[in-house]
Amino acid sequence: MLAAARRIDGFALRTPVLEISPGLFFKLELLQHSGSFKVRGAFNRILSAGELPAGGVIAASGGNHGLAVAYAARKLGVRAEIFVPEVTSPVKVAGLEALGAHITQTGAIYAEAAEAAAKRAAETGALTVHAYDQPEVIAGQGTTGLEVVEQTGGVDTVVVAVGGGGFAAGVTLGTESTADRAGRPGTADMSGTEGSAGMPGAPGPVGSPGSAAGVSGAGPRIVAVEPERIPTLRAALQAGRPVPVEVSGVGADALGATKIGGLAFEILSGPRVESVLVTDAAIVAARRALWQRHRIAAEPAGAAAYAALLSGVYTPSPGERVAVIVCGSNTDPATLAV
Amino acid sequence: MLAAARRIDGFALRTPVLEISPGLFFKLELLQHSGSFKVRGAFNRILSAGELPAGGVIAASGGNHGLAVAYAARKLGVRAEIFVPEVTSPVKVAGLEALGAHITQTGAIYAEAAEAAAKRAAETGALTVHAYDQPEVIAGQGTTGLEVVEQTGGVDTVVVAVGGGGFAAGVTLGTESTADRAGRPGTADMSGTEGSAGMPGAPGPVGSPGSAAGVSGAGPRIVAVEPERIPTLRAALQAGRPVPVEVSGVGADALGATKIGGLAFEILSGPRVESVLVTDAAIVAARRALWQRHRIAAEPAGAAAYAALLSGVYTPSPGERVAVIVCGSNTDPATLAV
Ligand SMILES: Cc1ncc(COP(=O)(O)O)c(C=O)c1O
Ligand SMILES: Cc1ncc(COP(=O)(O)O)c(C=O)c1O
Repeated sequence: MLAAARRIDGFALRTPVLEISPGLFFKLELLQHSGSFKVRGAFNRILSAGELPAGGVIAASGGNHGLAVAYAARKLGVRAEIFVPEVTSPVKVAGLEALGAHITQTGAIYAEAAEAAAKRAAETGALTVHAYDQPEVIAGQGTTGLEVVEQTGGVDTVVVAVGGGGFAAGVTLGTESTADRAGRPGTADMSGTEGSAGMPGAPGPVGSPGSAAGVSGAGPRIVAVEPERIPTLRAALQAGRPVPVEVSGVGADALGATKIGGLAFEILSGPRVESVLVTDAAIVAARRALWQRHRIAAEPAGAAAYAALLSGVYTPSPGERVAVIVCGSNTDPATLAV
Repeated sequence: MLAAARRIDGFALRTPVLEISPGLFFKLELLQHSGSFKVRGAFNRILSAGELPAGGVIAASGGNHGLAVAYAARKLGVRAEIFVPEVTSPVKVAGLEALGAHITQTGAIYAEAAEAAAKRAAETGALTVHAYDQPEVIAGQGTTGLEVVEQTGGVDTVVVAVGGGGFAAGVTLGTESTADRAGRPGTADMSGTEGSAGMPGAPGPVGSPGSAAGVSGAGPRIVAVEPERIPTLRAALQAGRPVPVEVSGVGADALGATKIGGLAFEILSGPRVESVLVTDAAIVAARRALWQRHRIAAEPAGAAAYAALLSGVYTPSPGERVAVIVCGSNTDPATLAV
């Protein structure tokens, strides 16, 4: 994690923290380059790879991950191919084009675009940058957690949104107490390169001894927030393994993974993590409050974590220090108006 | 200034700073309560007054100052009367009403509403909160400058927008080097209460020895930015005293004072301050860049300081550390869209 932080230093922004009332912090990750934390993982993955293949990098996503990979590739002078499904809006395609990415629009839904991207990667040898299920991606996202600890001086609880789970998993590792982290090579490996040896649960089975050692550290409570219409983590916790769920609702464009990632599940099924669900109405209300009260222009996924507090599905104890990660801003600002 | 900072602590937010590239900092004052720095001055003025008159507080402004006074009064449980001219939009009046203020809409333009407010204050004995030309207001705004110094670890230059000049004047004093500040009672008095004895240039004549002692301290360069269509400071510097100017353009709703304040002019005519003008087109372009590149939703006045950099009317030297204050966000977000 610390290695990831060093690696992406100067590429991703150290986004600011705002203490909105005593002990309640907003980590303003929506001000990140490309409008979400996703560039952290993208930079860490690409910079970890050493010399890049001639094919450059490849990713599937019509959303924030695609924008992040395209942004990182442009900064690093690397060719990027982004596969997007046909449902992706022309505005997003234009955004990707503006970043100089090579776009292939194919397949009705994300899963089909992802399949096409995988096939293409096998042909070209391009480096794949997964949206959530790669160690370097998780480690990159986790640098957000490191910063939260440093910038707040420590909190009791971090509230974070979950889609495929890479972000929350990274933040879980990134907020582990340093004393604990120091002694455990498994975690240190998360910031590492290609090989996932020592990586908790990767590729070993869920609940293997190796993985448990990697995720049971001390640190703040992680409140993992999902829209109730896309409960990938909740379903996996109930089933004991990642299982597909139906995807719908206001968060679907960013939190719309159909299944929690295998690596993420390993980490998020640990003792520090509490799963909560929020309604779409709560997300919409939180997004409105962020704009009207705080002039923070979040997209629905970016407001999901705050929705858990505002709607009361997570209620901090008196004196509890809480950091809420506001994590995405790729939204049409016209939709913020009252 | 330090006294003002202590006084408003817990009422105004300590807004965050974002280092957008090495040595270039955005002070995100647009995330302040009520959407601008104006609450700092409002709280400092009201909290300095000791016991408040039965009439509560009174201010004239249909814009950010009115919102700030209404916000502060509500927080403090004080009655607020806000006088707004007839040109003020129904949306802003609704915003003031939502804050529980008693609104009087009168007069064609701001100056007439201000006159009516003064008359009413004389009748009711309410505490007037001026938009820029009171020592406590300037000291309150100046706490922004104190924070910039602390949060950046020091900069060479602070870029700040000018309307009536209270904000830039406060920031000039608030960024004075502490060593210098310590020895000079004139500055310390800026954070003080009602009486303006010892206040630089208040109420003494421009250029009095007392005032000079108050404004010549060491500290970063202050780049004072005005729309070229509302050059109150520039005109005053040329005339040697505050003189009225024509008011028009995209910044008029927030930077539309017709004349620089007397106290502000005293401070802003000092050696640390450099006056620059920006076009309306530069303000619009900076506002668009703040949203598109950085997801910062500023109003035109809030983007004026950044416009000075983006348009090149102020070009930092290599290695120069620069803080740009992004100071207002009371805007219709629909107008941010491409
Ligand atoms: C704004 C935003 N928040 C949260 C997430 C969820 O991240 P993850 O899929 O790693 O759980 C995403 C994913 O795209 C996102 O774009
Ligand atoms: C957003 C914003 N910026 C700058 C200013 C200018 O402040 P001052 O009038 O103290 O110069 C104002 C004043 O209303 C404002 O609202």
